[in-house]
Amino acid sequence: MKLASYAYGQWITGSDSGTEVRDAVYGQPVAYVSSAGLDFGAMVRYAREVGGPNLRRYTFHERAAMLRALALYLTERKEGFYQLSYKTGATRRDSFIDIDGGFGTFFSYSSLARRELPNEKFLVEDDVQMLSKAGSFLGRHILVPKEGVAVHINAFNFPVWGMLEKLAPNLIAGVPAIVKPATQTAYLTEAVFRAMLEAGILPEGAIQLICGSTGDLLDHLAEQDVVTFTGSASTGRKLKTHPNLVARNVPFNMEADSLNCAILGQSVEPSDPEFELFVQEVTNEMTAKAGQKCTAIRRVIVPQEKVEAVLEALKARLSQVTLGDPRREDVQMGPLVGASQRAEVKAVVEQLRQGCEVALNGENAELLGGDWERGGFMAPTLLYCDRPWQVEGPHDLEPFGPVATVMPYTDLDEAIALAKRGRGSLAGSIVTYDRAEARTLFFGLAAHHGRVLILNREDAKESTGHGSPLPQLIHGGPGRAGAGEEMGGVRGIKHYMQRSAVQADPTTLMWLSGEYVRGAQVSEDNVHPFRKYFEDLQIGESFLTHRRTVTEADIVNFAGISGDYFYAHMDAIGAKDSVFGRRVAHGYFLISAAAGLFVDPAPGPVLANYGLESLRFIEPVGIGDTIQARLTVKRKNAKDNKPGERPTGVVAWDVEITNQEGKTVALYTILTLVARRPN
Amino acid sequence: MKLASYAYGQWITGSDSGTEVRDAVYGQPVAYVSSAGLDFGAMVRYAREVGGPNLRRYTFHERAAMLRALALYLTERKEGFYQLSYKTGATRRDSFIDIDGGFGTFFSYSSLARRELPNEKFLVEDDVQMLSKAGSFLGRHILVPKEGVAVHINAFNFPVWGMLEKLAPNLIAGVPAIVKPATQTAYLTEAVFRAMLEAGILPEGAIQLICGSTGDLLDHLAEQDVVTFTGSASTGRKLKTHPNLVARNVPFNMEADSLNCAILGQSVEPSDPEFELFVQEVTNEMTAKAGQKCTAIRRVIVPQEKVEAVLEALKARLSQVTLGDPRREDVQMGPLVGASQRAEVKAVVEQLRQGCEVALNGENAELLGGDWERGGFMAPTLLYCDRPWQVEGPHDLEPFGPVATVMPYTDLDEAIALAKRGRGSLAGSIVTYDRAEARTLFFGLAAHHGRVLILNREDAKESTGHGSPLPQLIHGGPGRAGAGEEMGGVRGIKHYMQRSAVQADPTTLMWLSGEYVRGAQVSEDNVHPFRKYFEDLQIGESFLTHRRTVTEADIVNFAGISGDYFYAHMDAIGAKDSVFGRRVAHGYFLISAAAGLFVDPAPGPVLANYGLESLRFIEPVGIGDTIQARLTVKRKNAKDNKPGERPTGVVAWDVEITNQEGKTVALYTILTLVARRPN
Repeated sequence: MKLASYAYGQWITGSDSGTEVRDAVYGQPVAYVSSAGLDFGAMVRYAREVGGPNLRRYTFHERAAMLRALALYLTERKEGFYQLSYKTGATRRDSFIDIDGGFGTFFSYSSLARRELPNEKFLVEDDVQMLSKAGSFLGRHILVPKEGVAVHINAFNFPVWGMLEKLAPNLIAGVPAIVKPATQTAYLTEAVFRAMLEAGILPEGAIQLICGSTGDLLDHLAEQDVVTFTGSASTGRKLKTHPNLVARNVPFNMEADSLNCAILGQSVEPSDPEFELFVQEVTNEMTAKAGQKCTAIRRVIVPQEKVEAVLEALKARLSQVTLGDPRREDVQMGPLVGASQRAEVKAVVEQLRQGCEVALNGENAELLGGDWERGGFMAPTLLYCDRPWQVEGPHDLEPFGPVATVMPYTDLDEAIALAKRGRGSLAGSIVTYDRAEARTLFFGLAAHHGRVLILNREDAKESTGHGSPLPQLIHGGPGRAGAGEEMGGVRGIKHYMQRSAVQADPTTLMWLSGEYVRGAQVSEDNVHPFRKYFEDLQIGESFLTHRRTVTEADIVNFAGISGDYFYAHMDAIGAKDSVFGRRVAHGYFLISAAAGLFVDPAPGPVLANYGLESLRFIEPVGIGDTIQARLTVKRKNAKDNKPGERPTGVVAWDVEITNQEGKTVALYTILTLVARRPN
Repeated sequence: MKLASYAYGQWITGSDSGTEVRDAVYGQPVAYVSSAGLDFGAMVRYAREVGGPNLRRYTFHERAAMLRALALYLTERKEGFYQLSYKTGATRRDSFIDIDGGFGTFFSYSSLARRELPNEKFLVEDDVQMLSKAGSFLGRHILVPKEGVAVHINAFNFPVWGMLEKLAPNLIAGVPAIVKPATQTAYLTEAVFRAMLEAGILPEGAIQLICGSTGDLLDHLAEQDVVTFTGSASTGRKLKTHPNLVARNVPFNMEADSLNCAILGQSVEPSDPEFELFVQEVTNEMTAKAGQKCTAIRRVIVPQEKVEAVLEALKARLSQVTLGDPRREDVQMGPLVGASQRAEVKAVVEQLRQGCEVALNGENAELLGGDWERGGFMAPTLLYCDRPWQVEGPHDLEPFGPVATVMPYTDLDEAIALAKRGRGSLAGSIVTYDRAEARTLFFGLAAHHGRVLILNREDAKESTGHGSPLPQLIHGGPGRAGAGEEMGGVRGIKHYMQRSAVQADPTTLMWLSGEYVRGAQVSEDNVHPFRKYFEDLQIGESFLTHRRTVTEADIVNFAGISGDYFYAHMDAIGAKDSVFGRRVAHGYFLISAAAGLFVDPAPGPVLANYGLESLRFIEPVGIGDTIQARLTVKRKNAKDNKPGERPTGVVAWDVEITNQEGKTVALYTILTLVARRPN
């Protein structure tokens, strides 16, 4: 089978015979991969001129809906992908991480975009910044999609997840992508990509695929483009210093393999559940994907006095791991991606043996199907390094396979110092039930790790494990790990947007940001805003209420109803010495009375007040003070109502309560559900 | 005068004769600059081993207090800096931007750190992320200071502000710095640096200074270090691809000169105030610092039909600008930093003349003091490019002096397209009073600009101008501008911190983050929490109240007191058709009644409830339902009370109201002021 690339709206097969890719299990040819003859400049232009403008027509929520629909479409077809995935050496469990994990990332990003982003084409960030005394000059950060293309260069180990975890944020952001999978497993990426296209959900130009070399692609990139890379540090360095990327300051996000650690707490005894959890976690990380994970545990840092127990337990566990054809149900670990990958890993193990002893080499493991010679099989290999300060290897060489090195420590400071010798990692694990120990270790590790898992009897059952990046949290790490950040919720989306600080007067800022800004010109008419449908409410539309004088009777009655007899309200002696110097009205009375001033009682489009934000009581209100409220439409967000549901939107209202001197006594935002206008 | 460097706690003078630096006005020698003989590796070690640990002992608020004290100390000595600043060619107004602007950045960062950061040594970011169904596995981002050194490489044009705007965020973050000013104006940086040291406010090792070349400094940097650079794109490229920085993935933040634009709106008539504002702004930007600002306006984009009027107005204004010795009060513009800088700018102007005509060259300008030959004087030069699509120069060549090019556009799309030809800018200005026009232009420009000023009659009086970066807003821009981000409030501080995603069970997460997490083990005792001082309240300390049954009388009475007769509460017919399906209690009644349940009425350490956050009504409460509240200490933040003030702290309490079925009906956080324990 000759794999095709998808460029400028067409499937194109390479013009030469291509690179042969072999099945990881039996070594049979699976595909030929070539991008020869592709016009990479045309791909970039197509993305910028067709894909970008098409995507930017939609809102974040609309693009989120596309991701969800795509994930559903792909999920229905998942069995076919699993069949292909076996050829890469993946067991069913491995494929679950890659395939379901990839689709799950689309689902997650779809939800979080709808939950955390507005139903808009741009994103307003932070609060309004007051830049002047009188308030006529304000600032705010607004993010818009970059007008270029995202180029994603992926590693072989996660042909599906690797593509989708990178695509989700750029598609939500409104930026098209060119995906370049690693050649060894491109056939699986190509199959999923093909299904995404068939689904017909994304607009034209949103995604393109290069199976084979990227040719002169990077020479065509420019200031609005973004490159992300996952793979080896040496390739990463080469790409990062590509003259055109450097000359045009193209953002480059790198995620490289790292020498991740797992630390067993000093407090953990072999009889504690955490001991078993530790052994289990290390075993999982060594054998899942046959250890071909950039997050896998490579350094197992153990209290000196527990080294023997840990080694014994790990050897016992690892030697029971069954190796063979991943299609077989009795097989727990499949091959590496190919025989040459095994040769590379074995060469690294040879180097590691200078200074480490082999605790388990599994050379005599039995093979349950598959071909030792032509496939990529390698049994789990455990090393022990008794002098981790004298030896560089375990802290510097990455065996990208089922290999880890155990090393001893004498106190927590030493454990932290050893962890740091990895010079920046994607993930670290701390296994202990002692929370003080967990805290010491976490703050020791944090500056050197993008993610830290703390595993104990309480979270183990639901833990997603040391090696699993999650859409909600950042994936990346400092130093050797590439110093990049992917995902991390909305953060990952912003990577494909430009942050621009706008400076303007309040009314102009309101116009631009679609959010009412205090000080902006408000509009008023004779219709009460509670009588208007979602569509008819304008940002900045405002309602000034009648007034109400606060009396002693109000305070007394409110105390009676609420049961709140706090001395500042009810005890004239105590109140005199209080921060207020006199009896004051309950804060909750003020916001209740404000609602009494602005609520329009009859049924109407405003259906419910479901929340309140950022309430601050600015000035106390005493007996005899007269209050008044101003209610202004601050922000609107159309809801993605489900079919059959009454169409609604969220309207956030700015509320300001003032006193008889015009001083602000309270400020807050209320959140209401408002009906849309019936058709 | 031979300038010294400050390294590993000592002032060290270069071991060779050094580079001669001359006065910009008269060309007299001012200083000799050399770093020969410095041990750069020792500087890096000193920062990491002495400065970093010393700074990390303090909280954000304590470090913020240092910045403020430093800024006060420097402000008292400012006249001496102004005297030195004249030698760089700066007028008093120019020095104000550099010197007072620099001190102002320290003041601003000090305030914003105290306002927006906790009084802690680490920073918790975003909400808790639910990573599992049952809630035993959670995630959160925590930021800690990087354990390395910040190396700041600065440009000649802002010897004071350039140092201080970079130092403020790293010092707040808790990271030491090595400052390397540009040689031409290092004598002013050195004077301010010396005063900072004399102040004795910063801990040992927090700051070091290199006057002269950086030697092999970059070879000593590693994974925990950060480099920031402001200067020319060519130097930036060289540093960015430094093999050691690339190999160790040292974060590199670049801020390079860009071809910033100002656009006059199509709606603006010569009789409008905006026309005058536009001419004024362009004039200011061309002449302030003699145009030696990376944010200065270089491209003046004007509606075709107003080109003539703009050219005439600019020529009239610019030809009145007085040039000479900046010490003289009648001088409006000083020299460039030196004669060689002038030669460079003149060479660029020569290149620009291919395709542009000279509208004003000011060659015959009179000089009020200073030396034409030996100083760096150059009169404002205005070019006009009538075919901006046929010519590359104005979009590609940067004359770093008092030079700008006017170019015409026919519609807003063309204005935007011309602006984009700058391929990424630090700042752009839009001058118009038409808000629809402002919006179209802003969203056209946003992806290409780090900052956009919208100038009109409303904000002009208080506007800080096109060219002024502000601490609250990001400074940086995509593409040619370097694709970096400095300042931008807390964002700038995070540049010197590592974000680590921690995954743990709720109780462990509470221990680590210092913030109560729903689901964590709470502690309870027999003392009401309102009877405890700030110091005695523990995170996770909790109080479960007695219960209260909500009756129809409550609803009716509450409506009477608040005046809120909304149909969902008071109209049985309307309520039946409402989203609740029956009469429900007022949301404000619930939170008032909850206060009645948890408030302890007598005077005590809890002084006031001053705010409320993130209130959500989850389930409606109807007649006959019984509610109960749980109050838990969520977060504590000791206040920096002023001398004489009663010492207090802010305690944020998590409040959960449940009903008789144990279902949550409302969730929120209240903010209280709590007294500290008397000594």
